[in-house]
Amino acid sequence: MEKAVKVGLLGLGVVGTGVLEILSDHQEKIRNSIGGPLTVTKALVRPDENKKRLAEKYHVELVTELESILNDPEIAIVVEIIGRIEPAKSYIKQALLAGKHVVTANKDLIAQHGSELAALAQERHCNLYYEASVAGGIPILRTIANSLVADEITEVLGIVNGTTNYMLTKMVQEHQTYEETLVEAQCLGFAESDPTNDVDGIDAAYKMIILSKFAFGMTVTMDQVSIKGIRGLSVADVVTAEQLGYTVKLIGSTIKRTEGIAVEVSPVLVPSAHPLAAIHKEMNAVFIKSSGIGESMYCGPGAGARPTATSIVADLMTIVNKIQLNTIGHCFTAYTQPTKLIPADKIMSKYFLSLEMPDESGQFLKLTQILTRLQVGFEQIVQEKSQSQNARVVLVTHETSATNIGTIEKTISEEKGFTLLSSMKVMGE
Amino acid sequence: MEKAVKVGLLGLGVVGTGVLEILSDHQEKIRNSIGGPLTVTKALVRPDENKKRLAEKYHVELVTELESILNDPEIAIVVEIIGRIEPAKSYIKQALLAGKHVVTANKDLIAQHGSELAALAQERHCNLYYEASVAGGIPILRTIANSLVADEITEVLGIVNGTTNYMLTKMVQEHQTYEETLVEAQCLGFAESDPTNDVDGIDAAYKMIILSKFAFGMTVTMDQVSIKGIRGLSVADVVTAEQLGYTVKLIGSTIKRTEGIAVEVSPVLVPSAHPLAAIHKEMNAVFIKSSGIGESMYCGPGAGARPTATSIVADLMTIVNKIQLNTIGHCFTAYTQPTKLIPADKIMSKYFLSLEMPDESGQFLKLTQILTRLQVGFEQIVQEKSQSQNARVVLVTHETSATNIGTIEKTISEEKGFTLLSSMKVMGE
Repeated sequence: MEKAVKVGLLGLGVVGTGVLEILSDHQEKIRNSIGGPLTVTKALVRPDENKKRLAEKYHVELVTELESILNDPEIAIVVEIIGRIEPAKSYIKQALLAGKHVVTANKDLIAQHGSELAALAQERHCNLYYEASVAGGIPILRTIANSLVADEITEVLGIVNGTTNYMLTKMVQEHQTYEETLVEAQCLGFAESDPTNDVDGIDAAYKMIILSKFAFGMTVTMDQVSIKGIRGLSVADVVTAEQLGYTVKLIGSTIKRTEGIAVEVSPVLVPSAHPLAAIHKEMNAVFIKSSGIGESMYCGPGAGARPTATSIVADLMTIVNKIQLNTIGHCFTAYTQPTKLIPADKIMSKYFLSLEMPDESGQFLKLTQILTRLQVGFEQIVQEKSQSQNARVVLVTHETSATNIGTIEKTISEEKGFTLLSSMKVMGE
Repeated sequence: MEKAVKVGLLGLGVVGTGVLEILSDHQEKIRNSIGGPLTVTKALVRPDENKKRLAEKYHVELVTELESILNDPEIAIVVEIIGRIEPAKSYIKQALLAGKHVVTANKDLIAQHGSELAALAQERHCNLYYEASVAGGIPILRTIANSLVADEITEVLGIVNGTTNYMLTKMVQEHQTYEETLVEAQCLGFAESDPTNDVDGIDAAYKMIILSKFAFGMTVTMDQVSIKGIRGLSVADVVTAEQLGYTVKLIGSTIKRTEGIAVEVSPVLVPSAHPLAAIHKEMNAVFIKSSGIGESMYCGPGAGARPTATSIVADLMTIVNKIQLNTIGHCFTAYTQPTKLIPADKIMSKYFLSLEMPDESGQFLKLTQILTRLQVGFEQIVQEKSQSQNARVVLVTHETSATNIGTIEKTISEEKGFTLLSSMKVMGE
């Protein structure tokens, strides 16, 4: 039996508690797998009664100075679970400089400063793992890095934000409004009081940046991602989409074409028979198209203390194996390509448009004349019985460019009495 | 750049061709990932014109004697893609004895002789990998071995046979009969002329044996698996199940309870909102319940030359990494537990029963009396308008044991004029 590998936690909230529980509950299985015990000996926190009880139960020393962990020669691995950028970033850098391996679940940080931290880790001959940063409980980064390494990925489509997927599921299945589902998600603890990061697609964009690195080896920044959230989405559009055979989902996509990749987050109409349409509530899923395997999908909980902690412990065990085999210092993903981006609007797509127009004869003709003039064909069109003087019309176009749709949106908005209600991409079968 | 790692193929059919194509198409990505080229230098085949052309294109030497590969000191890894038990088994043993690492896609062999071959590999300090043996393109074995190692799995439910899933999809979506879908699957090359292995659940059982080893560390033999296929399944039952909110799927399950595990293959009514219900046509999926992650699912193509070849190349690259890091000789899964089995009928379940009875007054009362006497409650019951003198009745029971259902089946069959048409498990929400 080899000697114990000791771990220091930065932060001790619900995820940290989950890590302690898993290491304790499955200690025998873990010990058998890595040839010795794996234990948390110190945690950096502001101590309170609750944390003191926890510390006592799991024999963890609570410390208030980072140095207590960094200067402890017995601690080999540091787990960062504070979140946000600072002080997490400086802490991780100091840990790597002190020769500690690092595990983090921090997507904001990895998406924005991952390359810098990975370079520092390699320079210091340390490991940096962050499986839990994307789709919490789904081992998607490891799968792309290890199993799809011999394949050529062309598209990664993800439902990677549990909060918005929960809200959309409620809108689709129970016809609740956007506002109602947001309050419900907040009460259940899925959404924060300021839901901006979730509903405006920012959280999903961070994750798509990390997935772009793993799938295509390219480093993308936030300003290079086309981002549109679900804020204010109308339940009428969600219901009409359902009637046309589609389920509205907030889809993060990173797509490769000959000229480069396009990274985007936006609400998309997913055909109901598509596996992504069956991902309900707070579940996450990543759908991959590749030349070898074809289509594959990985789904599971995207957040939550236990799933996130499980991914962190898997990262810890990977590092312990590498320490024992003396093969440390390899990057989580070694795949690096020059970053070549194409605008998201270069990716052709069908579009769903909904609009209001005066419920008078001749108006429908006017709409079809606009479409014909701009050479955008449509494959589905629905006019609803109006409850006011206006009629609501919904249509699904043939494949066209975002530029074309932009022109259509503009033309419709400028037409007297016409109001464009929404415009969303439609995924092909 | 390190020196080339050379590979010998045993067999050169469509999968072998796929391996050659992938190694050629993605040679740069592969070389970057493993630090040097990976090439097939020899293939053991009965040469024909087609294979000679292929060999010339990819610079592979065709050989007719196993020894040409085993005695070649340059060849480090042997890929077995002959299939079936013999001569595949002796070839793999000879390869391991000759100090070659082995990759195979052979599920029949791994399910029945995996422990013996893994022990030999370990004794000879060689690696034995077989990711492609279960659910071709889905890296499910690696995911369980690497990412779920810190988790405690309680259930693995799989759609692991593409042929039967294709047939069932056609029965559900197009109301084709069993016989019609079988012929179609045979024409498309999904099903062999003798479809026994697929439709009787044998192929799925092999895969569940391998999954049981990875999920629970236990070695199970074919006679310990409860196996029921879809042969002769009536389209009427499939359609009624759909009306009741279920999709019929051939489900392989390996389930852990306190006393042990139960391994089973049988047609099951899956609730339509369950992610497994959305796995259509020849796609495979593995759904895992575990204490840490909760519910996760992995889906992709279960067979096909390219997906299978992609998994084989991923295995090859894993081995090359281990050779280069000098960390060879570890098992694909090191998880080993004493095998403790419980009978599949100890797993409580709801059941779907369909039967015919005379379309006369008093008969329905008789049926409910039988159920009441045997203390089996039901939550759904449907009597269909009869086209003959008989009425068709379908019911879904509350959770009960297989023993209880056995008694009910027997009692119904013995009742004058009653015919039991089918009995299937119903998956809970």
